[in-house]
Amino acid sequence: MKRQEDLTLDPENWEEMRQLGHQMVDDMIDYWKSIREQKIWKPIPTDVKEFLDQPLPKKGQDPKEIYDEFKQYIFPYNKGNVHPRFFAWIQGTGTPLGSLADFLASGMNPNTTIGEHAAMYVDRQVINWCKELMGFPMDASGILVSGGSMANITALTVARNSVDGLQIRKNGLRQTEPKLVLYCSTETHSCIDKAAEIIGLGSDSVRKIPVNESFEMSAELLEQQIESDLAAGLSPFAVVGTSGTVNTGAIDPLDELLAICKKYKLWFHIDGAYGALAKLDPRYESRLKAIESADSLAFDLHKWLYVPYEVGCTLIRDAKKHRNAFAITPNYLLQEKRGLSGGLDSINHYGFELSRGFKALKVWMSLKEHGRDKYAQLIAQNNDQALYLAELVNQHAELELTAPVCMSITCFRMIKNGANEEFLQDLNREILLRLQEEGIASPSSTVLHGKYTLRIANVNQRTRMEDMDLLVRKVLRLGREILKLGAEI
Amino acid sequence: MKRQEDLTLDPENWEEMRQLGHQMVDDMIDYWKSIREQKIWKPIPTDVKEFLDQPLPKKGQDPKEIYDEFKQYIFPYNKGNVHPRFFAWIQGTGTPLGSLADFLASGMNPNTTIGEHAAMYVDRQVINWCKELMGFPMDASGILVSGGSMANITALTVARNSVDGLQIRKNGLRQTEPKLVLYCSTETHSCIDKAAEIIGLGSDSVRKIPVNESFEMSAELLEQQIESDLAAGLSPFAVVGTSGTVNTGAIDPLDELLAICKKYKLWFHIDGAYGALAKLDPRYESRLKAIESADSLAFDLHKWLYVPYEVGCTLIRDAKKHRNAFAITPNYLLQEKRGLSGGLDSINHYGFELSRGFKALKVWMSLKEHGRDKYAQLIAQNNDQALYLAELVNQHAELELTAPVCMSITCFRMIKNGANEEFLQDLNREILLRLQEEGIASPSSTVLHGKYTLRIANVNQRTRMEDMDLLVRKVLRLGREILKLGAEI
Repeated sequence: MKRQEDLTLDPENWEEMRQLGHQMVDDMIDYWKSIREQKIWKPIPTDVKEFLDQPLPKKGQDPKEIYDEFKQYIFPYNKGNVHPRFFAWIQGTGTPLGSLADFLASGMNPNTTIGEHAAMYVDRQVINWCKELMGFPMDASGILVSGGSMANITALTVARNSVDGLQIRKNGLRQTEPKLVLYCSTETHSCIDKAAEIIGLGSDSVRKIPVNESFEMSAELLEQQIESDLAAGLSPFAVVGTSGTVNTGAIDPLDELLAICKKYKLWFHIDGAYGALAKLDPRYESRLKAIESADSLAFDLHKWLYVPYEVGCTLIRDAKKHRNAFAITPNYLLQEKRGLSGGLDSINHYGFELSRGFKALKVWMSLKEHGRDKYAQLIAQNNDQALYLAELVNQHAELELTAPVCMSITCFRMIKNGANEEFLQDLNREILLRLQEEGIASPSSTVLHGKYTLRIANVNQRTRMEDMDLLVRKVLRLGREILKLGAEI
Repeated sequence: MKRQEDLTLDPENWEEMRQLGHQMVDDMIDYWKSIREQKIWKPIPTDVKEFLDQPLPKKGQDPKEIYDEFKQYIFPYNKGNVHPRFFAWIQGTGTPLGSLADFLASGMNPNTTIGEHAAMYVDRQVINWCKELMGFPMDASGILVSGGSMANITALTVARNSVDGLQIRKNGLRQTEPKLVLYCSTETHSCIDKAAEIIGLGSDSVRKIPVNESFEMSAELLEQQIESDLAAGLSPFAVVGTSGTVNTGAIDPLDELLAICKKYKLWFHIDGAYGALAKLDPRYESRLKAIESADSLAFDLHKWLYVPYEVGCTLIRDAKKHRNAFAITPNYLLQEKRGLSGGLDSINHYGFELSRGFKALKVWMSLKEHGRDKYAQLIAQNNDQALYLAELVNQHAELELTAPVCMSITCFRMIKNGANEEFLQDLNREILLRLQEEGIASPSSTVLHGKYTLRIANVNQRTRMEDMDLLVRKVLRLGREILKLGAEI
């Protein structure tokens, strides 16, 4: 074989790459530092969309030039969830050290799934810290995943595979008789439906139990449905309780659900993607005590732990069931007692993925930077802000709350005497869009009992009480403008 | 509500955080720059393991101190896939700009799933570039995922949900009659089995078709199996061909599999997690031409595109089937025609996840930095290196190839006249472990036709031809030492 000059993708000039790295750090620090003074959102101009629609480059380009393009075409049109007045969906802020940790993780680039290397131990430590945060027993197992959807489907796959006597890994679901049934509420996150579809149960096997006025699952109706399914010859196998519904932050009656699961021998899963971490706020500790007794728990660290995307966690009480649901060891992944292939049990035995990055590092650094206590304070602060916003809403006859405040979500809207639902929907949608278009704030919307509503979901470590004052002022100003009342407040 | 002082997780001293960021960039640049001179792997001392086994901190800690701990306890014990002589499993190297892009993505922190913001357009552009790389039609759809396992299970879920007349999303798999059957080879990656288990088909529904001496699926036996399953009243629905098996890099006869899929109206999925990108090497272009006609393709960008973890891609020929397999729109995710909630179709309609980070940015920057042509050269270089290594192996009577070389994987072992398999296994395992323990190189192992073998899988942008010379020299030296032949070469 003819030897040619060896190629590499490493930079020809390391010092230029170093300078570029410094520049990126500087620009990002300046961005974060001044984020409060910036508009939260800007429309994307046509030339930017055109630039981001060019074909694949054949030839390479100088990294400095690429970075300039990034600064011109991408950086200014960010989503905004780093901004103190971002309240849309449920999306965390991130932190500076968390992002720097992502750089270190990416630079080390370990595939954190198998082998004897430090990332495996950091991953294990972070899982243990997650158990501590949630009051899970230390012999439980867990895995870091990309977020709530993956955390929930991972847990539900373990629940499904743990059904006695069916050998679902081998046989699949075709011959399951009687039909497996899963319970959650009408307010449960759509990822539970999606999970049921993906893992082959089908959305028809998901029973949506009605909620009360506070959007909490009715334990009584749950038990009735279980009884009726049993009577119909079906096979109930799991209940999903929610700690912090996505619409209003409602908490299902977890203690009652737990008791029902014990009574009927069902797997009790808690979707705490958003709200499990409210357990750190003493006001919610007792309502969330049942988390400690759940068979499995899903929760996000890129939401209320304010860690940058992506990272969520699944905890499973019975580590053996967890491993039995996923473990496969092909010939090329045999573990050794020494060397690189030694070490801890491979993480792919506990989830869907084989390749895994070092997402544990940003959680590790973040939990060390702030400690449990500071997180507890921040989470309580977000809950306070939601209550404060509700107080402000109640002070204005033109505004109404559309749901009780639970955790850090406040749902409200502008109202007008005699206006019908369609009119109110148009009014509030227009307020929402103008809040975004003027770069003031980004709430999102939902529909509650048929009412289109503004939804202020706050897992934002940069929000201050004054942001709530400003939000209400601007909503009133925009609403009155739209109604042509013309009055500034 | 009593107003307290607002808390934040942002640094008290931004300038200190800036300096820390610069320090991290400097340390990482120095690390990459000198990686060739470093040991590839070091055992982890007990005190490090103890340090990484402490309970959750209650109080916070200075970021500088945390970084010092990182440098003492984590950084030195890296997995090693950034090193030029890392050949274990199939794990890419990453690049400096790719890692800096991860920092920018994490710093902007957009949830790249919904809304009108730049990350959505970058994601779309990267998917379009992936289609171009693979010769997929531009009206195909795709999604970036964490890696090969997720890419494969995403595609197989679409295949399963696209089976006519079953409404699997709604009904699940319980009533599927006749039984759905999926085909792959005995050399197919274990993630296909895992996917079949997770999506409820069960491993029993996966037919493992035998391979020839080159570890390629027998198209003849595939067709026989399909015929026999049809005769038994089963319902074949999909074939998985592999472009680059994990053991030896073998390529299934994709043209023949494609023809069989057309004949029997089966979904043709290609697992190209490792080897789809070999399409860029002219020597493999024609053998991989069938990729362009597949119904779906899974491939990794953190392997042979050398992008840092995590990023893989699924492409689906029929965008409508793709969307129909996953789309759900709950009330809180309604799209608008203006503002932040406007823009492109939400990405969660195309996969498992709702929350998604901005992993597209590192792919975008990498493809721009090097362009298609440089990647083609690098991939060809890895293939050359595998052939060169095989030449070296063939020059030594003490070494034997254990599989034909395909793409960039070379499997070989040391042999000894009259030694049985067990002896050779012990010998080669000991060579492997000492290569790692002495910090020289990290191959991994597998078992081929009962033979324990060293497996040099090379998707490494830092490897040079001289590394292959060194590897063979060291294998011979270690092997002779172990055999107490005492001869240095």
